[in-house]
Order: sequence, then structure tokens, then C-alpha cells
Amino acid sequence: MGIVVQKFGGSSVANAEGVKRVAQRIVNTKKQGHQVVVVVSAMGDTTDELIDLANEVSPLPPARELDMLLTAGERISMAVLAMAIHDLGHEARSFTGSQAGVITDAEHGRAKIIDVTPGRVEEALAEGAIAIVAGFQGVSQTTKDITTLGRGGSDTTAVALAVALKADVCEIYSDVDGIFTADPRIEPRARKVPRISYEETLEMAAQGAKILHLRCVEYARRYNMPIHVRSSFSDKEGTWVVRAEDVVTEEITMEAAIITGVAHDRSQAKITVVGVPDKVGEAAAIFGALADAQANIDMIVQNVSAAATGLTDISFTLPRGEGQTAMTALARLQDTVGYDRLQYDDSVGKVSIVGAGMSSAPGITARFFQALSDAGVNIEMISTSEIRVSVVVAEAQVQEAVNAAHAAFDLGSDEIEAVVYGGTGR
Amino acid sequence: MGIVVQKFGGSSVANAEGVKRVAQRIVNTKKQGHQVVVVVSAMGDTTDELIDLANEVSPLPPARELDMLLTAGERISMAVLAMAIHDLGHEARSFTGSQAGVITDAEHGRAKIIDVTPGRVEEALAEGAIAIVAGFQGVSQTTKDITTLGRGGSDTTAVALAVALKADVCEIYSDVDGIFTADPRIEPRARKVPRISYEETLEMAAQGAKILHLRCVEYARRYNMPIHVRSSFSDKEGTWVVRAEDVVTEEITMEAAIITGVAHDRSQAKITVVGVPDKVGEAAAIFGALADAQANIDMIVQNVSAAATGLTDISFTLPRGEGQTAMTALARLQDTVGYDRLQYDDSVGKVSIVGAGMSSAPGITARFFQALSDAGVNIEMISTSEIRVSVVVAEAQVQEAVNAAHAAFDLGSDEIEAVVYGGTGR
Repeated sequence: MGIVVQKFGGSSVANAEGVKRVAQRIVNTKKQGHQVVVVVSAMGDTTDELIDLANEVSPLPPARELDMLLTAGERISMAVLAMAIHDLGHEARSFTGSQAGVITDAEHGRAKIIDVTPGRVEEALAEGAIAIVAGFQGVSQTTKDITTLGRGGSDTTAVALAVALKADVCEIYSDVDGIFTADPRIEPRARKVPRISYEETLEMAAQGAKILHLRCVEYARRYNMPIHVRSSFSDKEGTWVVRAEDVVTEEITMEAAIITGVAHDRSQAKITVVGVPDKVGEAAAIFGALADAQANIDMIVQNVSAAATGLTDISFTLPRGEGQTAMTALARLQDTVGYDRLQYDDSVGKVSIVGAGMSSAPGITARFFQALSDAGVNIEMISTSEIRVSVVVAEAQVQEAVNAAHAAFDLGSDEIEAVVYGGTGR
Repeated sequence: MGIVVQKFGGSSVANAEGVKRVAQRIVNTKKQGHQVVVVVSAMGDTTDELIDLANEVSPLPPARELDMLLTAGERISMAVLAMAIHDLGHEARSFTGSQAGVITDAEHGRAKIIDVTPGRVEEALAEGAIAIVAGFQGVSQTTKDITTLGRGGSDTTAVALAVALKADVCEIYSDVDGIFTADPRIEPRARKVPRISYEETLEMAAQGAKILHLRCVEYARRYNMPIHVRSSFSDKEGTWVVRAEDVVTEEITMEAAIITGVAHDRSQAKITVVGVPDKVGEAAAIFGALADAQANIDMIVQNVSAAATGLTDISFTLPRGEGQTAMTALARLQDTVGYDRLQYDDSVGKVSIVGAGMSSAPGITARFFQALSDAGVNIEMISTSEIRVSVVVAEAQVQEAVNAAHAAFDLGSDEIEAVVYGGTGR
């Protein structure tokens, strides 16, 4: 039997009870004859508490020291988890990112993995021990300082270790059973997807489905490492994230694969710049200013200008947290650009259909829009990719839009699955 | 100006306020032109909380993992302290014990320092930064695992770093102004000692004065590193712990140096084995059993046996925490040794006078005992060393005994100093 890498998020190990439950699961895997490497996040709210502490001391803590501070979180969870495994009669050895050979660049707070040299982990496995590795952290190749990987860091640690160790699979555990055709909290007929391609997973995640972090999926895709997304509360099979060709060969009816799922995102806001003179350079000035303000623009729509006035409106969406900064940056432009006024709307939501089969199946977009129309949902903005169609609608209509799309593409299961749909940790 | 090593205990950095205060003090030292290296313990009760967490998960956590867990405490405090210093406009870099080159043996939980190779600390100093080093921790030379140094570890880290860096002084900060002639909480006329020898400090500490840990004083004595014990709440000079010859040359009246201070200890218990047959091998059997039970025996008294019965009583003192174990070990011996019964008394206290000049000044013991007698204090046991006389008395009479000794040797100052007398951290 080969190596299995298992990643547990902070909510799975939030307290002693959770730690013991996870330890039992790890031991069960070991008993099945696998060599087990575990990647663990900080317990529960530890990271937030450490950030609060830093802010109490300093309004703008230096990034090197913030990384040193935050990595204490995984140090605690991994040591405690190793203890719980020992208590079950199995040997476990915890390793920091540095000890596990997670080599990164020196970008504190958002370091990228350069190399993984897990010599000590391999040694522990060879000696029959279970290896517990701190997620989210590494050591800089140049400065030898401790770094953190930023959002999605623990998932990425797990995949990177799995690749370096040539593991059979990287299992990502959370409190959800897998990846669903839609968020079961708002679509009760949502069905767990048994297999999904890396590309579809990336689109789903990018469009707001809180399943896996983009970075970890990109890493897995690059090295073709299968990810098994599953629940730490049950033994059920979860969702396998694999190459597109491995999805297709497993599907019985090709039809079913056209649309894989419906994603939604309530975290965005829409800004409209009203009455922009329709001349060369105005859009460049606007989006240049937004780029300088580090705003992450998602969708952009520009109306055809009214012939009578020579004025146009430009709308775009961005994360709500960046709304204030963007509005301030735009306000400074009013005199030079000469627009009329700004509108800010944070009661919008985005709904997307994702499916690898979409590009070769005509009429998907029409079917989607018809379903929205039948449900009385007004479309405010549209954007598309090869395997995705997204629309911005009023936030109050997000649920109706998801339900309508889910039904239109026959995604639902016959029975209603009782699941809690939550996000993964860091 | 040279290198100054400053050690701050957990109570000095118990919260954000304390961290900022300590940061200001460090920056002040730096501004005076010194190169500053700081050793810091875990904040407030962090260590105890981590131990509680470990016990929640496992009744007997493996030592390697317990060390991994506990070292998270200093990681937090050192990072936060570095942030607070940055906030005052100075560069600070935090280093784990491993990064600071604190090389130990592999005895988890009570590792001994083998070598200190502070290359990264020296580099930080050379670049004008303040170096913050995690106390209490190191890395094993053989296994490369993280170790902790056990009780007094942070003080020892500070002295060891000071020695390795050839520092001018190792400053140990706590909430007390220095080393006093007696505990000011029970002797209001206690006076701060300006200078004291390593040997006297060792005796004071061993006899219950909660000033410095034995290990750190022994380390400092071996390498002749001056320790300056002072308060983190004031700028007053504290107490310098130095070589005996450096104490004498500073003293104006030689007389004053005969007795340096009065120590007391309320943490002991007395066990009496009553009616032991006075024959060869009985004492060996008793203390052999106690040694097997890992009891730390302090004072031992055996009465001359009564001629009529051929029976004797053996009394000894030991830490109260070990009383139960010792009593159980002795109870098992009753049949083989054939003693009468056991008496356990934990309402005893030990009072000691310590002074390097004692050995060359006759009559000191007599003066001590006379003072106790005048105060109506009954002496239960006596033990002496070259520079110390200790007595065991009823716990209720400890304060009277300390006051009597303090007065008998003219240790008091004229004014009463208002100080809080507390212990140092780990």
C-alpha cells in the first residue's frame, strides 16, 4: 500500500474532542496498511486570536514577525494531534513546515512553495511512524526565516507534500461530504459529485463555491495529484478531483457531464461610474486608478453610449471589502475623467453554471437565461468562459437563481441529502 | 559599548500593555548605544494553558510532542515583542532557540545546553537590529528535534547566550527590584543587596529564596558572567551577582558581609520514622527506598537511640509535593525494617542565614540560635554548610524566625522599602 496524505482543517481540530476523533481516523487509515502523512491547520479560532493579539501590540505588524507569530498555531495543533495518536498506541512525529522541508520564497504572508524536500517525513514513515506536518508554513530559501503561505496554505501544503512523496492521493477533510452541484444550504436537492475535473473545480472555486482553494487545485493539476475531498465526520466516499479525461471515462451518461454544478457568491459589490464621456482613454484612466488601489476587479460591463449625450456607464464587480478603497480612488478621478457620479451597490450576488461539456454543447447559455427569466430573476451583468456562464443578480434573488439553474440542468438528486456545507480552513 | 542580554519573564509580558512597556525599555537600552539581545519567556499563563490542553488530549503526552507544544509559547511572545519594538521605530528580529543556535542534548523537558552558536543573532546585531530570542528552548544535537530546558530554562538561555556572545552583562528582569536580605513580604526592613557572590546566591536560591534559578547561577559562575537582577517596572539599579572577590572589594565595612541574607522556604514537609531498630542497614534501607521513589531528601536527623529500647527516630525533610509518594514507599518497608510508625508534618518551614564571611567568623551559629530562642522559636532540625546555617521550625513561626535573624545580624535598612517580592518565571 502506498502513501496517503490527509489534511484536516481548523474546524476539525477545534477542541480536544475533535483532535481525538481525527486521531482515530488517522489510525484507522494506518491500520488499513497505508503510510500516513497528516497536514493540519491551527485549532479553531487560534489564528484569528493571534492576529488580534498582534493588532493589540502594533497597528501594522512587520510581516516576518506576523509569520513567526501565526505559525505558533499549527505548532500547537500538530503537537496535540501527535499526542492523541500516541494515546491510541501508534507512533506519531510532528514536523514544522521547515522540518518537513517546505521551502518557499521570502514573501512573508503569501510565500510560494519553491521546493519540498521531506527527508525527515520519509524517515519517520520508514520507521513506521505517522508524520504530522504543520500546514500553511515553510521556510525561506534565501533568508532561512519562517514564512506562511497565505490563504489556502494548508491545502497547498498537503498537495505539495503528496506530490513530493509520490503519494497515491491527497485527502482534504472538512465538515462537508464533498463537492456538491450547488450549496445544499440554499439548494436542498444538491447532489454530491463523485468526480470532477481540476478545471471545473477551479471555476467553481473562483465563482464562490467554498470547496478548495484555487492554489491547491492548480498545484494538483500541474502534477496530476488526485484530491479526495471528504468529511471528517463520516466514512463516506467524497468527491475525487482528477484530470478531465478521468472524469469522462467514469461517467455512464455523457449528457450528465455538460453542467457539473452551480456556484454562487454573495461577497461582491457592484460599482457603476455613471455618465462617462465616451472617448479614448477614459476606461484606461478608471481601471488604471483601480489597479493602483489594488482592487480585484471581476466582471466589467460598459453600455453602448447614448448618441444624444455621448455619455456611457461603466459597471464592474469587486470584493465588498475593497469597495471603500475603490470608491475613494474613483472619487479622486472625477475632475480629470469628468464622469457624472458613482453608484455603489453591495446587495448583489453572482450565480454561475460550470461544466466541462459546455463548450461543445450549444444552447446552454440560452437554457440558463430562460430558467432565470421563468423564475422572475433579472440579470444585471453577464460574463462567460470556456466552461462557465456567470450572471450578477440582486442578492435577494440569488437563491431563486441557483434553484432555477439547478432544476434546468437536472442536477438534483431524488432524495434530499442532509449535509452541513461549510468552508475549508486556511 | 558592548552587548547587553536582557531576560524578561512571563509576568513582564503577560499582556499587550506589558509587552509595550518591555519594548520601550529595550529601545531605551539600545539608544544608550548598546547592542541588545533579549530573551523572553511565554506570556503570562500561556505555558500552563498549553499543558492543560495537552492533558485534555492525553494523560501522558510524549515528551517530544510536549516540547513541540510548549515552545509555541515563546514563539508567540517573541514575535509580539518584536512587533512592539518595530512600532517604536527600531528593527527587531525574533529567533527560536534553534535559530539562535541553542544546541542541547535530547532529554526532552529537561534538556541541557551543549553549545550555543548564535551566528544569526550576531548577524542581526551587526546589521543594527535588536535580537529577540525564545527562552527555555533549544534543538537537539543528535535528533534535530525541538527541546525544552525545564525549570529556570529562560534564565539559563539568557546567561548561556550572554556567555556565547561575550556580553558585558546578563540582565534578568522580574517584578522585584533585586535580591533582598530577606523576603520583604515578611521582613519589612529587608534591604536590597547591591552585590552578592554566585555562591551566596546559590545558597539563597537553594534555601527557598525565589530569586534566580540554580542552573542559571551555576552557568554564570562557571563562565564568570555578571548577572544584574532588576525590576522591569523601574530604572533603579538592582543586585549584581558576581564573583566573591568582586563583592568584597566593593564593600566598605568588612563586617557587613558576614551574613548576606535570610532565606526561608515553606514548601517542605517533614517525615519521621518512629521506632527504627538501631542496627546496621536500617537507614540504608529507608533512604534506598526513598531514592527509588525519586524523593528529593533535604535535611536528615537521626536521634541517638534510647539505651533501654534500642530504638531510634529518623526525621527528614522533602518537598511537600513528594510527601505522598515517600509515605507510600516507606509504608511498604514496615515489615522488613520493623519500625513503629510514620509521622507526616507539612506545617514546617525552613529558615537559613547565608553569608560568605561566615566560615571565618566564629559564633555566628550561636548568635542565630540565641536570636531564635529569644523570639521563642523552637528549632526542630539543623543543617549547615560552609556559608549557611539552616533550621526547620514550625511553619507558624517562620516569620518570627526570619525577623529575629534579620535583626540579630543588623541586615535591616533604616527605611522600609515598598516592594513586591515575587518569583521569576521559567
